[in-house]
Amino acid sequence: MHDLPQGFDLAAAQAGFRYRDRPDLALVFSRVPARAAGVFTTNTFQAAPVQVARANLEGSDLIQALLVNAGQANACTGVDGLADCRKSIEMLAGLLDISAGSILPASTGVIGVRMPMSCWEISLPGLVENLGKCTGEQAATAIMTTDTFPKTASREIELEGGRVRFWGMTKGAGMICPDMATMLAFVLTDTEINGPEWQAMLRQAAEQSFNAITVDGDTSTNDCVLALANGASAVGCRTRDDWNMAGKALYEVCRELAYQIVKDAEGGTKVMHIRVTGAANSLDARKAARAVGNSSLVKTAMFGTDPNWGRIVAALGRSGAGFDPANVRLSLAGREIFCNGGPVDMDVDEVFAPLLKSRDIRVDIDLGSGDGEYFLMASDLTPEYIRINSDYRS
Amino acid sequence: MHDLPQGFDLAAAQAGFRYRDRPDLALVFSRVPARAAGVFTTNTFQAAPVQVARANLEGSDLIQALLVNAGQANACTGVDGLADCRKSIEMLAGLLDISAGSILPASTGVIGVRMPMSCWEISLPGLVENLGKCTGEQAATAIMTTDTFPKTASREIELEGGRVRFWGMTKGAGMICPDMATMLAFVLTDTEINGPEWQAMLRQAAEQSFNAITVDGDTSTNDCVLALANGASAVGCRTRDDWNMAGKALYEVCRELAYQIVKDAEGGTKVMHIRVTGAANSLDARKAARAVGNSSLVKTAMFGTDPNWGRIVAALGRSGAGFDPANVRLSLAGREIFCNGGPVDMDVDEVFAPLLKSRDIRVDIDLGSGDGEYFLMASDLTPEYIRINSDYRS
Repeated sequence: MHDLPQGFDLAAAQAGFRYRDRPDLALVFSRVPARAAGVFTTNTFQAAPVQVARANLEGSDLIQALLVNAGQANACTGVDGLADCRKSIEMLAGLLDISAGSILPASTGVIGVRMPMSCWEISLPGLVENLGKCTGEQAATAIMTTDTFPKTASREIELEGGRVRFWGMTKGAGMICPDMATMLAFVLTDTEINGPEWQAMLRQAAEQSFNAITVDGDTSTNDCVLALANGASAVGCRTRDDWNMAGKALYEVCRELAYQIVKDAEGGTKVMHIRVTGAANSLDARKAARAVGNSSLVKTAMFGTDPNWGRIVAALGRSGAGFDPANVRLSLAGREIFCNGGPVDMDVDEVFAPLLKSRDIRVDIDLGSGDGEYFLMASDLTPEYIRINSDYRS
Repeated sequence: MHDLPQGFDLAAAQAGFRYRDRPDLALVFSRVPARAAGVFTTNTFQAAPVQVARANLEGSDLIQALLVNAGQANACTGVDGLADCRKSIEMLAGLLDISAGSILPASTGVIGVRMPMSCWEISLPGLVENLGKCTGEQAATAIMTTDTFPKTASREIELEGGRVRFWGMTKGAGMICPDMATMLAFVLTDTEINGPEWQAMLRQAAEQSFNAITVDGDTSTNDCVLALANGASAVGCRTRDDWNMAGKALYEVCRELAYQIVKDAEGGTKVMHIRVTGAANSLDARKAARAVGNSSLVKTAMFGTDPNWGRIVAALGRSGAGFDPANVRLSLAGREIFCNGGPVDMDVDEVFAPLLKSRDIRVDIDLGSGDGEYFLMASDLTPEYIRINSDYRS
């Protein structure tokens, strides 16, 4: 708890929506109304909690609580699912004596199943009672689904006016390919900051962190990143340096959380750090990086610690990015392996066998066509991913 | 051999480019120069044989031989690989006493490895000697890589002027997601037909067959469909009915070959027949079908015979196709499972358990927004796919 920003309390409880033997419900409470910012999934099917959170945020950016459950997504549950979601935050509002409009709900889990109201009725009073007795680690554990470890990150920075903290937690391991926002992540700060600036900072940080990772190319119906700034430190951003530092701290927290998602990718054993430079423009760089990071053939080669650069090059060639094949340079784990349209002369197997054993593998691609850049973190593809996702209704 | 069109001879040989214990080289020879048509990969990196075949076809559409090897792709091998390819067809031209420009080469296999000229020197004389002693099945076997069965298809039709035959063979099981043409396929006919018409017929047939399948979303550097019409039946297309029948026969041969590729998908156990209707336009229909067919989560659910429709709906939602979620209807294996924004009321597990046991599964999606349609065949994703592709340098 020591690294939580001031003025925030956490709680966790066992509601039994799907899991029977572990906490599956978390609450974030700000003692005073906080400025809230949010970025949401671009999936056309938006889960009930996404719809309610968006509506509440549009109503007012002063938010006091985040209510998060794991195991059921409450997505594609029609008007009934929407009513269920509204009822649950009304119940919580009564217990906390705040307005339902100042609560943002978020859910992950199986799509298309309604959540029994009795679970809410039984668990919410205990959840509220638990407030302040729960660590960041425990709250991050309560929002896990197929995750294998809880994911948190924090930064403390010194602004002109004094010290402020940023803290975040996230969950996510499968159905990960944010096109705008992805998965669930929650970031808290005690910095004094107003709504529009906070929203802009969050959007930028999310774009370069959560939106720049992929596990399986699937964008979920429930993805969202919610951020609360409650001003409890009484310290705001005064100078340009302050703004830069705060923006950097937020970005670093988001980036660290995003990395943890890829590290915990379902069945994953590797994290590819794919950097594309020299693209005609940033959109082409993004296309190239995503074609490589989402290629099942590149992913399985990485799992097999096989320096099969031909698959990377083939993915670039079908990416839709424009470039001259003769100008492309590719480095794997820091060693150049392809240039001038052909392989670099060396004993590929001997050179790369030790390098590809690490969990983190750099893939540096220079398209030799301009200044466009993009950076993407991607997992590998393993039999364990198949096992997890072909298990009936995982 | 009985179903080959007239005037064509086949041959196979063991060249040892990669495989040691099986034929890996096939030759198609037309006794008279045939009108040739071809569609080629849209991958920016084009393999040496693709470059040579394109150039030869541009030089003249009168072609007499197809030379096809398996095991090495001769892709991304630079100017040396290109010279190797040219030398191999010059050798064959000498043995057959035809011009090198009337031979189209094609290769599949590992990217980035040069093919030793000694293998060509040793194997080509025997290959030419074998001409006419090889069945369609044997030739189709010689071009296989990770394929588990040879793939051929044929049609015999009665035109105004008499009987003509269409015969084709193909290979392909991984790196399959044609964006224009895909994998290797060869179609022969003894119909009398001229170049531009033959090319137009092939392009249309390929678009609705080979270009409408996916195994893993990866488009290869070597994909091509080559078609020869040698006129040996002395029967041409005279009436509109003749043209329609010939076009249909060509399409059916291509479609049957394309289906066999998906059936033989690396590690595959299912073929999803994904039909999207009611899209705003055909591009949106294509986007929606491809998002579903390439989703690792949908593919693993199919492998697990799990009617997890939420994953199909989530894939539609991120596809980029425009539609109103409330109007979407989804049927699985012929039974409606999702409409009006929520699940159809039934015991999903009981209803679908028997239906999802079949190899072929229909996925019918109505986006309720217009007349756009698209049909895609897609494989599932299994541990065996991972095993095949994470095996060192498969």
